[in-house]
Amino acid sequence: MLNSWAMNSAESLIRTLAAAGAEVCFANPGTTEMHLVGALDAVPGVRGVLGLFEGVCTGAADGYGRMADKPALTLLHLGPGFANGIANLHNARRAHSPIVNLIGDHATWHVDADPPLASDIDSLARPVSSWLRVTKSADDLARDGAAAFAAAARPPGAVATLVVPSDLAWGEAQGPAEPIASEAPPPLVSDRIDMLARVLRSDEPSILLLGAHALRERGLRAAGRIAAARGGCRLFCETFPARMERGAGLPAIGRLPYFPEQVIELLGSVEHLILAGVPEPVAFFGYPETPSRLVPGACRLHTLACPEEDAIGALEALADAIGASSEVASSTPAERPARPSGELTPVSLGAAITALQPEGLIVMDEAATSGLPYFLGAGGAPRHTYLSLTGGAIGQGLPCATGAAIACPERSVLAFQADGSGMYTLQALWTQARESLDVTTLICANREYRILRIELDRAGLREPGPQAQALTDLTHPVIDWVSLGRALGVPSERVESADALVRELERALAEPGPHLIEAVL
Amino acid sequence: MLNSWAMNSAESLIRTLAAAGAEVCFANPGTTEMHLVGALDAVPGVRGVLGLFEGVCTGAADGYGRMADKPALTLLHLGPGFANGIANLHNARRAHSPIVNLIGDHATWHVDADPPLASDIDSLARPVSSWLRVTKSADDLARDGAAAFAAAARPPGAVATLVVPSDLAWGEAQGPAEPIASEAPPPLVSDRIDMLARVLRSDEPSILLLGAHALRERGLRAAGRIAAARGGCRLFCETFPARMERGAGLPAIGRLPYFPEQVIELLGSVEHLILAGVPEPVAFFGYPETPSRLVPGACRLHTLACPEEDAIGALEALADAIGASSEVASSTPAERPARPSGELTPVSLGAAITALQPEGLIVMDEAATSGLPYFLGAGGAPRHTYLSLTGGAIGQGLPCATGAAIACPERSVLAFQADGSGMYTLQALWTQARESLDVTTLICANREYRILRIELDRAGLREPGPQAQALTDLTHPVIDWVSLGRALGVPSERVESADALVRELERALAEPGPHLIEAVL
Repeated sequence: MLNSWAMNSAESLIRTLAAAGAEVCFANPGTTEMHLVGALDAVPGVRGVLGLFEGVCTGAADGYGRMADKPALTLLHLGPGFANGIANLHNARRAHSPIVNLIGDHATWHVDADPPLASDIDSLARPVSSWLRVTKSADDLARDGAAAFAAAARPPGAVATLVVPSDLAWGEAQGPAEPIASEAPPPLVSDRIDMLARVLRSDEPSILLLGAHALRERGLRAAGRIAAARGGCRLFCETFPARMERGAGLPAIGRLPYFPEQVIELLGSVEHLILAGVPEPVAFFGYPETPSRLVPGACRLHTLACPEEDAIGALEALADAIGASSEVASSTPAERPARPSGELTPVSLGAAITALQPEGLIVMDEAATSGLPYFLGAGGAPRHTYLSLTGGAIGQGLPCATGAAIACPERSVLAFQADGSGMYTLQALWTQARESLDVTTLICANREYRILRIELDRAGLREPGPQAQALTDLTHPVIDWVSLGRALGVPSERVESADALVRELERALAEPGPHLIEAVL
Repeated sequence: MLNSWAMNSAESLIRTLAAAGAEVCFANPGTTEMHLVGALDAVPGVRGVLGLFEGVCTGAADGYGRMADKPALTLLHLGPGFANGIANLHNARRAHSPIVNLIGDHATWHVDADPPLASDIDSLARPVSSWLRVTKSADDLARDGAAAFAAAARPPGAVATLVVPSDLAWGEAQGPAEPIASEAPPPLVSDRIDMLARVLRSDEPSILLLGAHALRERGLRAAGRIAAARGGCRLFCETFPARMERGAGLPAIGRLPYFPEQVIELLGSVEHLILAGVPEPVAFFGYPETPSRLVPGACRLHTLACPEEDAIGALEALADAIGASSEVASSTPAERPARPSGELTPVSLGAAITALQPEGLIVMDEAATSGLPYFLGAGGAPRHTYLSLTGGAIGQGLPCATGAAIACPERSVLAFQADGSGMYTLQALWTQARESLDVTTLICANREYRILRIELDRAGLREPGPQAQALTDLTHPVIDWVSLGRALGVPSERVESADALVRELERALAEPGPHLIEAVL
């Protein structure tokens, strides 16, 4: 229909984003994105990666952003295509992951006709977008792209969404726009550091709670200096960290528990809670007669740095202020369990991973109720990076592992995955196969929504009726993950003992390319 | 945590909805829905059906609503769980399907803490909800449920969404509320009928375009009387009907084409376009130098009934007004092709279905570019019901077929499905297996997004580059649908010739329970 492809606005946009640093576009395009697809071929440097469902694309962009510390692009089709990606953008928003979503929309003059795919994209996009703009002219498109990239890349990272009407993508453009430098985070607040130095010097029992960039190596080392210098201070990470460096040689760190009564009990044991890169701890869900905010009245709450501030700089300044030695005495010793044998349980499963994990593994943990023993035991494993489900929207694990593998082609990735959640976005396995990604997916097949069995009990349904049982059951029929994996191009095996898991996991981690292991619990 | 289950507001809600006529709840619940799950056991009459992804639940509710002509319930978990169901609710909204969504939200007092799963549900739900309410008190919940059901059930049907904060579901209630009778559609407009009777008597060339309930048997028979009485009038259905009765003995009817230039050409051949239950024809997408509204200036546009009006009554009144005989002369003769042999193509595939389809088959067509030959050839097949993708949000077919089968347990269902779209919501196969539904899924495996290859060409990309090719290709790796189907509990076979398709399709249609056939094109 168009006679000349030569220079259009779509190309000016992609050229701008490539110059700003975009290297990957996780895409499931449709008709309104054809010119943007064409631009990926016209412009060198941005690699299109196809997902067979938009939740794969947005979850992969989240994983990429967590590991690359810069935005990937997504390319999504109108409101409904974007809607399929919302759940994982919700997780990305909670993770402060940098992402630039490009949504192709109808031509500006076509919307008024209310064609079948028209919908209120603004209303759908706003809840998960820290930055949202609809391009108003072909000439604006490249500049809007530069602004979107800068908004996404601004530390700690954000979801930016740019809606591109198709006529503005195919329109004439004046060429790419200059990249915009991201704003720096706000400067450290020295009053807070002085005050918290006094708190720490008191040696009153305290917890330093770390999140966001405070869980990177520099943040952890600064926190480790603080804890080593002041015996009253213990280190914890938030319950669901977006990204955390872990393993032997890093400071020992606890994890804030999940259920509110556990958090209340923990915080009841200290006089101060100091936040570094995290918001105040709140209950994941509201329960009768349980508060939302979990810091007991006797515990004083202090903010060293909120997630938008420079938590690493604040921790280092605090460590210096208390005169903490730069030599960290309290790092975790290297320690691994023996390879487990016998029954396959969350404990033996966790031990198998810890016993085998190679240096530099990226672990994406969406193992839900099967995952905690691994976390508790892996502190002394070789250095690794731990990612978790930040926003509670299940179906993040397989896509996020996919994106992490694309960000870090030289590292192995483990998708440590619950079966119920895994079924949400299993299409990610196909992208892993297509891109030959070094991801081992370990499915924890307990064949139920076990967390909901626990929650039914907590809700007073001690003996669930047949419908409550059926709605939390995955045994009828049993899902054959090995066939699912192989059908999507991923070599897959089933294991029913710890010994078999050790054997298959060792092989999968050693071989390049994707693998899947269904661990029947 | 709760000591007494005895009588809560969740139970009063489900009791109210059951009394109003709700029989099925397509659910993927989470913690905030536990009391609603418990209520499904406490109240007889509402069957919970588990979907492994929310898009399955909402698509199934759409299919159920189209076939049962009353709402199913969905039960969805907070904003992100709802978001996973939006794309198929978009299709349902375009289909005027009656659906009542129940979204469990955080406890009212918990939202202010901004827990991880909190999001702006109102903003997410509004674009796909004709009726939307957040319950304000436990006492209101049952009444809100009655209002939601009535809003959804009002002809032609609508998507109603009720947000249920968990503390209001577990709160004390005064018991169920009275069902609310749905409003009747507005009365017929006699002026319009008189005017259109004059148009028809002129015998100027005209098209009567039918949609919504005009495509039910009574509407078709009235339209058939009109066309038989006035030679100038031809009958067409809208491009993507939500539900249409078809087959031998019903009037012959054309289908409005998909591409805008085809529609413009067709309408250029007539002087009048009369709408019955449909909006004005518009282009599915905007293309350069192509109008959005497709009725040429020389063709006069008339509305007999818009989708919200009583199109059947209007057609019958119009037939009477022109003195049309009540004996329809022009019904389609029974006619089937021979069983095809040789190469498997969209044409032989269509012929195989038409040659074999049993009386009363429900055909859910999301076969995209592989589907048209079947539609064109099936007019003389035994009576059947045809459902299509109304809103363009792919991934409707497998869920919608699932819901249709639950609505009509005595009928067979054919999910006539493109492979690219089918991958969006393949989890529906598991629900078909679990519920032993008589659905035959026929995957048209052309192993590409073929419509996008066509659209790339229309956009001027005559020779797509490697990225455009890769983003529309499904061959690397090839998706093994037989393994996918079997992994999810559905007996599955692959066919590579028309002969093999005939053999497997005949078997699948004859045997009860779900089957899948991957037809390699």
